[in-house]
Amino acid sequence: MKIAIIGGGSLGLLFSYYLSAKHEVHLFTRTQQQADLINTQGLQMIKLGDERTTHNVYAAPLHAWQGTEDMAIIAVKQYQLPDIMPILTAKTVGSLLFLQNGYGHIKMLKNLTSFPIFVGSVEHGAVRSSGNAVIHNGAGVTRAAVFQGSEILLRELSASLASEFPIIREEDYEGMLIKKLVVNSVINPLTAILNVKNGELIRNPYYKEIFEKLFEECAQVLELHNKEDYFENLLNVCEKTAENHSSMYKDLENGRKTEIDAILGYLLEEAARKNIKAPLIHNYFECIKGKEHEKEGA
Amino acid sequence: MKIAIIGGGSLGLLFSYYLSAKHEVHLFTRTQQQADLINTQGLQMIKLGDERTTHNVYAAPLHAWQGTEDMAIIAVKQYQLPDIMPILTAKTVGSLLFLQNGYGHIKMLKNLTSFPIFVGSVEHGAVRSSGNAVIHNGAGVTRAAVFQGSEILLRELSASLASEFPIIREEDYEGMLIKKLVVNSVINPLTAILNVKNGELIRNPYYKEIFEKLFEECAQVLELHNKEDYFENLLNVCEKTAENHSSMYKDLENGRKTEIDAILGYLLEEAARKNIKAPLIHNYFECIKGKEHEKEGA
Repeated sequence: MKIAIIGGGSLGLLFSYYLSAKHEVHLFTRTQQQADLINTQGLQMIKLGDERTTHNVYAAPLHAWQGTEDMAIIAVKQYQLPDIMPILTAKTVGSLLFLQNGYGHIKMLKNLTSFPIFVGSVEHGAVRSSGNAVIHNGAGVTRAAVFQGSEILLRELSASLASEFPIIREEDYEGMLIKKLVVNSVINPLTAILNVKNGELIRNPYYKEIFEKLFEECAQVLELHNKEDYFENLLNVCEKTAENHSSMYKDLENGRKTEIDAILGYLLEEAARKNIKAPLIHNYFECIKGKEHEKEGA
Repeated sequence: MKIAIIGGGSLGLLFSYYLSAKHEVHLFTRTQQQADLINTQGLQMIKLGDERTTHNVYAAPLHAWQGTEDMAIIAVKQYQLPDIMPILTAKTVGSLLFLQNGYGHIKMLKNLTSFPIFVGSVEHGAVRSSGNAVIHNGAGVTRAAVFQGSEILLRELSASLASEFPIIREEDYEGMLIKKLVVNSVINPLTAILNVKNGELIRNPYYKEIFEKLFEECAQVLELHNKEDYFENLLNVCEKTAENHSSMYKDLENGRKTEIDAILGYLLEEAARKNIKAPLIHNYFECIKGKEHEKEGA
């Protein structure tokens, strides 16, 4: 398959590396410099133990994208999506796979009527260490589901991949994204503000109280029916990633913009729409926004 | 006047130093070692610019206290008060002045029926730098009011002191303590968890939101009538101490127990008693308790 990957961040590099083993990958970056670096030096994967391997991947800046590939994988942050959408609308593409966190982007996809569209939820840990190198520090899976249209291309993509980078097909895109949203809504802001690793949220009895209360608010705002399943999943993720720092923790630590708008920002919109009070969601949203504001000023 | 000072922390040393200029001060410490140090080397005051002066103050461990002074100033933390109360009840003293933060200790004082009792609220900044040295890094005032009995001794004490360490008499002990409680309830936990100086709470628009919401909850739980006055006072303190780190921030930084029980712990009791929901007070109480728990485990 010919696959375009839009975005040269950690996720874009991760997907470019693994998919280029079986497919013809064209990686589209924001800057010409990054594309040049990848074209001249290749795309480097760094695994635990410092083992390095390089794949050759064709890269170009996004404005050069023609939209001729069979599938385009949109690997930018949700807050970058509004800038990308006009380009997606203008180009003819075979299929689109969106990998954003949160749920707010779903309403944007509803304007894209003409394509088979998939949405995904990535459970890998990855850090971009330079413009052409990515560290895959948390082996996981990618879950993906049909948003609209036929599933054929997704099945083909999933079947083509080796077990070290599986794409697992899910039936229900909404449940899949909401599950991830709940995890991100609780673990990300709490670890970032309390300045702790994921596992501390359930090991420390006082943090566990907050963890449960914040989950309760999320469950109420999202009107979760099988609440216990979502809580079970949240606990599981927290246990499995106990020794990790969350992405939001690391974003703040490195002075980067976080995904708070896509995560608690979406929940606040829902809470307002449904007229539900959500004091903790509100509080942690303001905490993270305040931290971002501090870094901007610094 | 003969004055006993109970407690050799920063406040005890600060009061011992200033009061010993005009009065015969007996300082009672937890340990024999600290008393020995003060008796042999004197009590040292360090001011900004590293200017040092020493006063000779008689010190002894608390168990040696006879209660024969005209006044005893209780300069321990509120959470240490339960250990001290039986001693206070057992000894005959002329008068007591309690300097604790919070409001929860007031119900303990109601068991002390036989003495003229004063309560105070200290607005100085002070840090104990060793067992016999204190840094007076924030010049302020001490406010004091009658809790029960005659005001005579308090007036005498206030009149005796120079302007560098004033004691200002207040009419209404409840209003005085609650004013300080509101300040401590908002500034202390927020600065300690957000890891910022006091002024950042009102400079950062996102933190300001949280600041206002937490104040609103406090006002509701304490059933403040003239809410605007309390908010005005809170803002003033925040502005005046903009470049300071709060005591709770420093307690956590130095791995010490905080006064959270006397502050938000008291508000939670009141909220439960009055059946008022206070999600932010609850949240920040758990945050601080969790931080203390982290340090204990470390």
